[in-house]
Amino acid sequence: MSIDDTLTKAILPESELPTAWYNIAADLPEPMPPHLHPGTKEPITVEDLTAIFPPALAEQELSTQRYIDIPDEVRAIYAIWRPTPLIRARRLERELGTSARIYYKYEGVSPIGSHKANSSVAQAYFNHEAGVKRLTTETGAGQWGSALAFACAAFGMSCEVWQVRASYDSKPYRRMLMETFGATVHASPSELTQAGKAMREQFPDTTGSLGMAVSEAIEAAVTDPANARYSLGSVLNHVVLHQSVIGEETLKQLAMFGEDQADLVFGCAGGGSNVAGLSFPMLRENLAGRTTTTIYAVEPSACPSITQGRYEYDHGDVAGMTPLMKMYTLGQEFVPPPVHAGGLRYHGMSPMLSHTVNLGLVKGLAVEQTQAFEAGVLFARAEGLVPAPESSHAVAAAVAEARTRTSEADACSIVIGMSGHGQLDLPAYQEYLSGAMV
Amino acid sequence: MSIDDTLTKAILPESELPTAWYNIAADLPEPMPPHLHPGTKEPITVEDLTAIFPPALAEQELSTQRYIDIPDEVRAIYAIWRPTPLIRARRLERELGTSARIYYKYEGVSPIGSHKANSSVAQAYFNHEAGVKRLTTETGAGQWGSALAFACAAFGMSCEVWQVRASYDSKPYRRMLMETFGATVHASPSELTQAGKAMREQFPDTTGSLGMAVSEAIEAAVTDPANARYSLGSVLNHVVLHQSVIGEETLKQLAMFGEDQADLVFGCAGGGSNVAGLSFPMLRENLAGRTTTTIYAVEPSACPSITQGRYEYDHGDVAGMTPLMKMYTLGQEFVPPPVHAGGLRYHGMSPMLSHTVNLGLVKGLAVEQTQAFEAGVLFARAEGLVPAPESSHAVAAAVAEARTRTSEADACSIVIGMSGHGQLDLPAYQEYLSGAMV
Repeated sequence: MSIDDTLTKAILPESELPTAWYNIAADLPEPMPPHLHPGTKEPITVEDLTAIFPPALAEQELSTQRYIDIPDEVRAIYAIWRPTPLIRARRLERELGTSARIYYKYEGVSPIGSHKANSSVAQAYFNHEAGVKRLTTETGAGQWGSALAFACAAFGMSCEVWQVRASYDSKPYRRMLMETFGATVHASPSELTQAGKAMREQFPDTTGSLGMAVSEAIEAAVTDPANARYSLGSVLNHVVLHQSVIGEETLKQLAMFGEDQADLVFGCAGGGSNVAGLSFPMLRENLAGRTTTTIYAVEPSACPSITQGRYEYDHGDVAGMTPLMKMYTLGQEFVPPPVHAGGLRYHGMSPMLSHTVNLGLVKGLAVEQTQAFEAGVLFARAEGLVPAPESSHAVAAAVAEARTRTSEADACSIVIGMSGHGQLDLPAYQEYLSGAMV
Repeated sequence: MSIDDTLTKAILPESELPTAWYNIAADLPEPMPPHLHPGTKEPITVEDLTAIFPPALAEQELSTQRYIDIPDEVRAIYAIWRPTPLIRARRLERELGTSARIYYKYEGVSPIGSHKANSSVAQAYFNHEAGVKRLTTETGAGQWGSALAFACAAFGMSCEVWQVRASYDSKPYRRMLMETFGATVHASPSELTQAGKAMREQFPDTTGSLGMAVSEAIEAAVTDPANARYSLGSVLNHVVLHQSVIGEETLKQLAMFGEDQADLVFGCAGGGSNVAGLSFPMLRENLAGRTTTTIYAVEPSACPSITQGRYEYDHGDVAGMTPLMKMYTLGQEFVPPPVHAGGLRYHGMSPMLSHTVNLGLVKGLAVEQTQAFEAGVLFARAEGLVPAPESSHAVAAAVAEARTRTSEADACSIVIGMSGHGQLDLPAYQEYLSGAMV
């Protein structure tokens, strides 16, 4: 194909909204190591998972079916903002003097400003279908919490969020966003759960962690089995599944630009759902021999699960209430420093993404926080869009690569996973600009 | 045409991005009363205007040419986010039990989150073409200031913003956004200009006003004639012109939904550029006898220029440095209470919009602040999108109208001008939800 050099933004009509989620479990060269029951250490069953999830999500978690239909009710809500644009960052290219063609898949056009709504709407729908009245969850920077708050409002369910204290204190706007949608928000660890109380006793000065908040949210759900279920915003297979709409759309949009493939993909990785959602449909194409895309999962140096962690069975939370999952992990009790990319402060990593990394199908890369914000400011001044601090990690890695490519012989296509905008993270940019960030 | 009941969001391909701005001056049944020179009181000339604006914008301000080509460089930047979506608010319709079909034209997908970038990019371009190195401006809530900061970054110009103190103090995020783009921001009135000093002497406790900030920004520009020009984010004819892309796109998108016309249009009116940009292409269709759209300019009860002001010649600023313009005004020294919709706190109103109101072509409507936020929360919970407080005024008026329409006989199409999202205005929503707002 020849590159369309006149196009800035590829937008798909609503009729091109994906009708099915893509499940890479169907195409993996080696099957995923199973999740294990935290008590028996046996492979977990759909039935086991229904203690915390509704049946449909429990099935999706263990499914190896290649495509799973997206219910019409979910597509109707996706249609408010999806398909999202794939935008060529022409002004950034010029700024960098690169021969690379840089594209970003922009999930910040969603009502809540990030990709998280792709899974929250699906999760709220399947819970609502199963008669669940109340969803509990954890959130870091608040992106997932606001996504679930929005989805619960859409289905008339109540929503209770435990937010990592570091973010609860430093980022009040996302709490306000959750409350505007009608959700209740607690700083975690809280006094409301046994798990929270125990953690406060053990670590009185803790700024919290996603692992702690997960324990609290699960406890709140399992102690109200008649009404409540728990909902997780990343890490799990069914979340990665829901996010596959990002990559499916991107493939079609790259073709609109005349690109045969993304040569390089950079996505940020906290729990892993953004980079996995963007890249797994591309990995499917790689595995089928149709493309040769190199995929990078970019994480912060301060919480380097993939690049510094071990690939082993670990819990997804601090209290050990989740299944044991084989993943890259820094250990369930690891409390990362309060870096500004709150969504990337997780001790573990999506087991599905971890498996593909372990098989050599996806590469890990760590980026320093200041390097991420430097790239974020560069991007903002060139393209007008202030990236979410999480996304800025992917931008930084892409920028570093693009700078090495200056000749026509080096030209390639780069896709950045722009998971969201950073308008609610501006105090972090302020800190960077003032020179106070370390 | 028959209505397409399957479509949620009409999106136009980049090839449908308007190629020209529409100037309603060409089609008005009576010509606009001219702007007058503040000294001579004679009709102002293009030459007079070049003291503060570059030649191209000075010409646009007085032009009666129907269509003015959008330069390729401006369209290339518009293409980052335009055409913007027209979305059917199906969930809101259901919530209201209305037979009306409610659409909103969503400008919040722009990188800075509002419609203001439509004019800032154009203004920065024409200034850059004229060799201007530095732009000065005023801003209320910060939407215009961040739009101009973004546009100046795009063309490598420096940007200096005087922000109304009420917003500077209560909405730090937009200041941070401007600074992220590289702009310098001062609270107005400041000590940096003669106008600012005089106002601080006269009103030591003032929270500022757009009229004061305009005076400061103009003074800063005219005292640096070799490098600087002034830029205004609303009110003037050339700003209204640039915003016409909103309405041109909306007309095409209504046709995609199978609508012959918008029966009712509600847009918020501070300086008037949003509602004028949305509705003037529709008014062109009305004047040509092709449609019968009713257009409402919705303003806050606390700053009711159209509904309570007089239609007379007044200055656009406090110090009397702007031309005299015939418009609905509360008087150049009117200081509105610090309502949260900072973008609507202006004593006057676009002369072009005022003229159409005076001719009976557009209707004025005032909405209480709490009514606006009530509608904003309702909209957020139904559609997932938190409207900018400014836009919420239009939402409130549309909701009130839709509630009166419950039978099939009452069915009609309603278009809301969603000028931006409210993610940087969440403290105002918080105040509303807590019951503290009056």
